[in-house]
Amino acid sequence: MSYFDVASSAPLHPVARQALRASLDEGWADPSRLYREGRRARMLLDAAREAAAEAVGCRADELVFTASGTAAVHAGVAGALAGRRRTGRHLIVSAVEHSAVLHAGQAHERDGGTVTEVGVGRGGAVDPDAYADALRPDTALACLQSANHEVGTVQPVAEVARACREAGVPLLVDAAQSLAWGPVEGDWSLIAGSAHKWGGPAGVGILAVRKGVRFAPQGPLDERESGRAPGFENIPGIVAAAAALRAVRAEAAGQAARLRELTDRIRTRVPELVPDVEVVGDPVRRLPHLVTFSCLYVDGESVLHGLDRAGFSVSSGSSCTSSTLTPSHVLRAMGVVSEGNVRVSLPLGTAEEEVERFLDVLPGVVRDVREKLGAPAGPTEGAAESVTVDAMGLTCPQPVIELGKAIGKVRVGGTVHVDADDEVAAVDIPAWCHTQGQEYVEAVARPGGGARYTVRRLV
Amino acid sequence: MSYFDVASSAPLHPVARQALRASLDEGWADPSRLYREGRRARMLLDAAREAAAEAVGCRADELVFTASGTAAVHAGVAGALAGRRRTGRHLIVSAVEHSAVLHAGQAHERDGGTVTEVGVGRGGAVDPDAYADALRPDTALACLQSANHEVGTVQPVAEVARACREAGVPLLVDAAQSLAWGPVEGDWSLIAGSAHKWGGPAGVGILAVRKGVRFAPQGPLDERESGRAPGFENIPGIVAAAAALRAVRAEAAGQAARLRELTDRIRTRVPELVPDVEVVGDPVRRLPHLVTFSCLYVDGESVLHGLDRAGFSVSSGSSCTSSTLTPSHVLRAMGVVSEGNVRVSLPLGTAEEEVERFLDVLPGVVRDVREKLGAPAGPTEGAAESVTVDAMGLTCPQPVIELGKAIGKVRVGGTVHVDADDEVAAVDIPAWCHTQGQEYVEAVARPGGGARYTVRRLV
Repeated sequence: MSYFDVASSAPLHPVARQALRASLDEGWADPSRLYREGRRARMLLDAAREAAAEAVGCRADELVFTASGTAAVHAGVAGALAGRRRTGRHLIVSAVEHSAVLHAGQAHERDGGTVTEVGVGRGGAVDPDAYADALRPDTALACLQSANHEVGTVQPVAEVARACREAGVPLLVDAAQSLAWGPVEGDWSLIAGSAHKWGGPAGVGILAVRKGVRFAPQGPLDERESGRAPGFENIPGIVAAAAALRAVRAEAAGQAARLRELTDRIRTRVPELVPDVEVVGDPVRRLPHLVTFSCLYVDGESVLHGLDRAGFSVSSGSSCTSSTLTPSHVLRAMGVVSEGNVRVSLPLGTAEEEVERFLDVLPGVVRDVREKLGAPAGPTEGAAESVTVDAMGLTCPQPVIELGKAIGKVRVGGTVHVDADDEVAAVDIPAWCHTQGQEYVEAVARPGGGARYTVRRLV
Repeated sequence: MSYFDVASSAPLHPVARQALRASLDEGWADPSRLYREGRRARMLLDAAREAAAEAVGCRADELVFTASGTAAVHAGVAGALAGRRRTGRHLIVSAVEHSAVLHAGQAHERDGGTVTEVGVGRGGAVDPDAYADALRPDTALACLQSANHEVGTVQPVAEVARACREAGVPLLVDAAQSLAWGPVEGDWSLIAGSAHKWGGPAGVGILAVRKGVRFAPQGPLDERESGRAPGFENIPGIVAAAAALRAVRAEAAGQAARLRELTDRIRTRVPELVPDVEVVGDPVRRLPHLVTFSCLYVDGESVLHGLDRAGFSVSSGSSCTSSTLTPSHVLRAMGVVSEGNVRVSLPLGTAEEEVERFLDVLPGVVRDVREKLGAPAGPTEGAAESVTVDAMGLTCPQPVIELGKAIGKVRVGGTVHVDADDEVAAVDIPAWCHTQGQEYVEAVARPGGGARYTVRRLV
């Protein structure tokens, strides 16, 4: 078995396991009590806070432990917005933030606030100038992830932080995906993170708020963790989380170099081994361990099942694998193919042989799914001037498969019309055109629902 | 060392430790993923939910795991209030709820809702009829703890639940202190609990919401745990929590009988061994492992330090031991002495010898503090008609010490006036009169601040 999905959750680091076991005996009491067991728990908590703060790059009294990364994001966004309510109620997020940030933004909108989503380029990064343009006099808070969780693209946090600082707006950085690799650069105001992403246990997040940042915790009062994270402290988890963060940082440089070589290999070899694949995300400014690609004419779920049977655990941003049946908002914002999407995120210490075996297995898995779905075999010469495809009622990846087959029936310069009502088609048909070098002409709403998509054959 | 404060936090049960260790290997992955590690995590989570639901007495799909008992209370109160917003915005709580419930109520008030606090008798229990009288047509939610965390009094939950059911109002029961001992009786609608109180790990709470109860989760959307508990599931903690609950339940009947005998011994012997002590809480309808008493003429902090030096870890609801410097709202609502308050809550398996040693040590600890503070030695015969004591600027327990000394200077039928501005005097002077058999006449606000308390000597 090869587990290639640390971006979802990393196995517990051995150092974390050891720290957890030790602190189960020492850290179960209430750290606010004055007796021996309480003082011992308090000492563990204080030491963990010092260690975590050093790794994050802040003062110990600026950092609290939350119940999860999600809780850290929710508390951070709500507290920072409330702290600057007099300035205004405008929030800026990037379009590719983690759902925890986007959901916090939606809650803010339901509460009467306004949110601007800053778009990203095809590589998944925001443009710092475009981000700066979104800053307004009534902007209370800006959010930008340190690196994207689905495609690994590193965001220009330092540049955006500078623009925010000049505008007097605090910047909250969701650093969940990057804290294992190093501190966040630049002049950030708040940071949120999640221990189970760096090899710590589940149930621990961190929220750092720089001194001087106006912050008003929301929700019912609670005295613990400076009033910013309610509930009895999970000290064994916190101790293990801090220990894991130190441990992964100690090996980060070496692991980053090794894993970057392996993900580069995947980036290069997958398009050679599998036809009709788009590798997505910035090829250079990216996390070392994460690579994402989309395979045309397959559904992500079938590919994931095939890889699981072959012993590989990976993730997908395709609609078919999520409960909501909408494609990843990240891939959509980037304008890249969402169908047949595969995210590989390698754990520390991944062996070269595992990656080679993955590259051996992948082509057969994709081929099998394509055969089953009747995907187009390859480019053919067509003669028709125009072909219309009825893909109404068909779901991802069928509309694109039908388009792929139809394009082979028209001459170069001819057009294909696809009638489809699957929401994903609106993302995947333009993205297909981009990867295939064909011209995406337009989408026109159909009276009965769905849309007619028009594509012109160029090659 | 004897740790006598499980009502704050219990040491991890051996079964929980074992379950935690095992599930660290099996339960770190994302249970929403379809690959092997995710399916394994999901199975652990499902099994833990079944086990916890059985212990709570509900269906598995009615129970979610939260990040703490506090989180369960906050989410439960907010969700139930929002679910019945159309009915009204009135919330009922008892005056002796845990601060998590009271703080949720305060947040509701800040948000424009109204809260009724139902008082308690000297034993700490609400009167079911008085509670029922508080129900109104616009009551959205009622809250009542199963048993009090400071004095151990068991509340008449079944009776109150019946009244709520008749009025069509859901009842949320904070069962944090009692779940180790058995399911909550009666027709409750929501239950909140906290694993570290029953020997599970910190970082896990439970929230059960009966089918049919209108519930609208508040805060940002999150798909996990039926949308009721945001953040990545802490599966090893959850597995350990469920295992611990089953384990403590299996031994509950035997332990309850043993510990009840030991706490009965404390209830009987402490007043024999230490003069001027009030044992508080209901002597019969109470948790088996918990006993609370207040010692006149001492401050809780000094007694706790003395007991800690002698090897006993206990808790106190006295103002001097809390960061807020206000006495326990529970003791205040009961109208009992708050000074020199000591709560003993025995862990499972407490040895009889430990309790005997506690009874050996306690009188000396209290005597030493009293000597240091100059407490009144005992009843003396006085001759004066009236004595006025200036206790302005003095803090607990000094105003009561001065009163105790002054009462010895007046004749039976004579009066003592105490001028004091310590907030605690308003609680402790009437309570002192009650325990000493003296008449509390009145308190009159003084022009310069504080109050003049008048006491008549009866014995």
